Amino acid sequence: MHENAIIQLAKKFPHFHPEVQLGIGDDTAILGPLNQSSLLWTTDLLLEDVHFRRNYFSPEDLAWKALAVNLSDIAAMGGEPLAFTLGLGLPPEMDAAWIQAFFKALQAASEFWQVELVGGDTVRSSAKIVISINLLGTALHPTLQSGAQPGDNLFVSGSFGGAAAGLYCLENNLEGYACLKEKLLRPQPQLKAAQALSKICNRLALTDASDGLGRSLQLLCGPKLGCSILLEKVPCLPELKQLAEAENLSAWPWIIEGGEDYELVAALPPEQCAAAEKLGWIQIGSITPSPQIQIVSSDGSRHPLKETLGFQHF
Amino acid sequence: MHENAIIQLAKKFPHFHPEVQLGIGDDTAILGPLNQSSLLWTTDLLLEDVHFRRNYFSPEDLAWKALAVNLSDIAAMGGEPLAFTLGLGLPPEMDAAWIQAFFKALQAASEFWQVELVGGDTVRSSAKIVISINLLGTALHPTLQSGAQPGDNLFVSGSFGGAAAGLYCLENNLEGYACLKEKLLRPQPQLKAAQALSKICNRLALTDASDGLGRSLQLLCGPKLGCSILLEKVPCLPELKQLAEAENLSAWPWIIEGGEDYELVAALPPEQCAAAEKLGWIQIGSITPSPQIQIVSSDGSRHPLKETLGFQHF
Repeated sequence: MHENAIIQLAKKFPHFHPEVQLGIGDDTAILGPLNQSSLLWTTDLLLEDVHFRRNYFSPEDLAWKALAVNLSDIAAMGGEPLAFTLGLGLPPEMDAAWIQAFFKALQAASEFWQVELVGGDTVRSSAKIVISINLLGTALHPTLQSGAQPGDNLFVSGSFGGAAAGLYCLENNLEGYACLKEKLLRPQPQLKAAQALSKICNRLALTDASDGLGRSLQLLCGPKLGCSILLEKVPCLPELKQLAEAENLSAWPWIIEGGEDYELVAALPPEQCAAAEKLGWIQIGSITPSPQIQIVSSDGSRHPLKETLGFQHF
Repeated sequence: MHENAIIQLAKKFPHFHPEVQLGIGDDTAILGPLNQSSLLWTTDLLLEDVHFRRNYFSPEDLAWKALAVNLSDIAAMGGEPLAFTLGLGLPPEMDAAWIQAFFKALQAASEFWQVELVGGDTVRSSAKIVISINLLGTALHPTLQSGAQPGDNLFVSGSFGGAAAGLYCLENNLEGYACLKEKLLRPQPQLKAAQALSKICNRLALTDASDGLGRSLQLLCGPKLGCSILLEKVPCLPELKQLAEAENLSAWPWIIEGGEDYELVAALPPEQCAAAEKLGWIQIGSITPSPQIQIVSSDGSRHPLKETLGFQHF
């Protein structure tokens, strides 16, 4: 499929936002005015055989995920998505059907999330698929990772470990476990959960768990604070425990270190806990003044989260 | 070299613009307010063995070029660069010395062009280097490709064919021809030339010649207009003619179709010609009402620019 034909597919994407003055078709896109909002800017680079494999990622799943992982960063800032660019490297064997399916799904995702495709670069790659998305969003008051205080409560927007367990199933050709696989292939950016929480909190530290719950806790605590979380309070999918049992593995490394769940982790003052719970957020622990991350098992034993996040001993 | 060490290199880049509220270190970068300016957004994806080869692109040249090709798009809109993100895929064999040299040169280029690194994504690639840069700039009045009128004069900011001829030298291991190689390895985005021209013109159509002079002329003419250019007026480097003679090749395919010179091509009203020439712009022809691009040789013969830009018959 010729580059011009691909550009024609990209030009079909709809226009949603008056802030996008000019999309595809000149030397650059043009945006503005943005009024009082701050502009949020994020990017993720997805490489074949590093972040995904073609044999279990359909073009539809790949398009969804490439956009979703960037939307998750906008969610983590309490923002609204505005527009994105797509850098796409395609090896010569990618046929028109694959490319059309990818763009059709990307357009559907862009319509679903109301985020406009405004530019990009499509090139022939030598062997592997390359997907580089940059996404701009807006927020009146962006929610940073920093700002948590001792006594703040820790909340999450959903379940953990599913994506890592789904990857395990796909890499090992296990049948079933549809929910786990879906969690990896079709992550759901938590834009509305973040915006709702941001509205009720006068103080809020927020991040997304792209690199795992443990890493998100480190980011929220920073170098000076710590936290204590109750393992049994961390939500996980029923299939995760079934898989762990069937494979005779511990579920906790997936839950704590897994990554790619694209749920959010928040630290907020105790007086906002009830309101957060009403919005569907789930409390898993609290911020402590000493700089150690403690994971408390159901038997009451406490395990420090190691710097390396190696959980071999759980 | 671990990803965290690479992020530390990126965090050393200096801060220039008050519009960048937050760079690397949270879920997204934060920019704003942008006042009355429009935001310009461009991206280029550079893949090893498609756009460059490691054996003749040093890390320093690669860093410079990756930024320069994006800056050229901002120049083509008459804009000022503001900030950029870097998506970088590095195969496992890239050593610390290469990575440090790349980031040192990228930082030098970012300081030279006053454009801030505000985010990115560094990942391990399986075999080839991947570089994805997105760049934002600003302009009070962006200069579009469209808007040329019959009778407008066509101007260029510099010489053509050098980059393509430089590529020929490097691919064929020819010694010498330093100016041609430099044109490929170290393109100079014409930001100041564009801004100066934009100031003196009440009407201006402008684009960069990343895909060659012929393609730029097609973009400026659009489907309804044409142009006539005098081949001997198109500037080219003396080394280009030396190379063509030594290799017994025609120089014109490089000059018309070559691409990657990153010079600008402008269409502007006759009354601004003298002022444009004073700024160093070079007149090469004019816009005509009939939709055909005519290239006029020194003997007066006229050659239509074919749709395919195939110049085998010159």
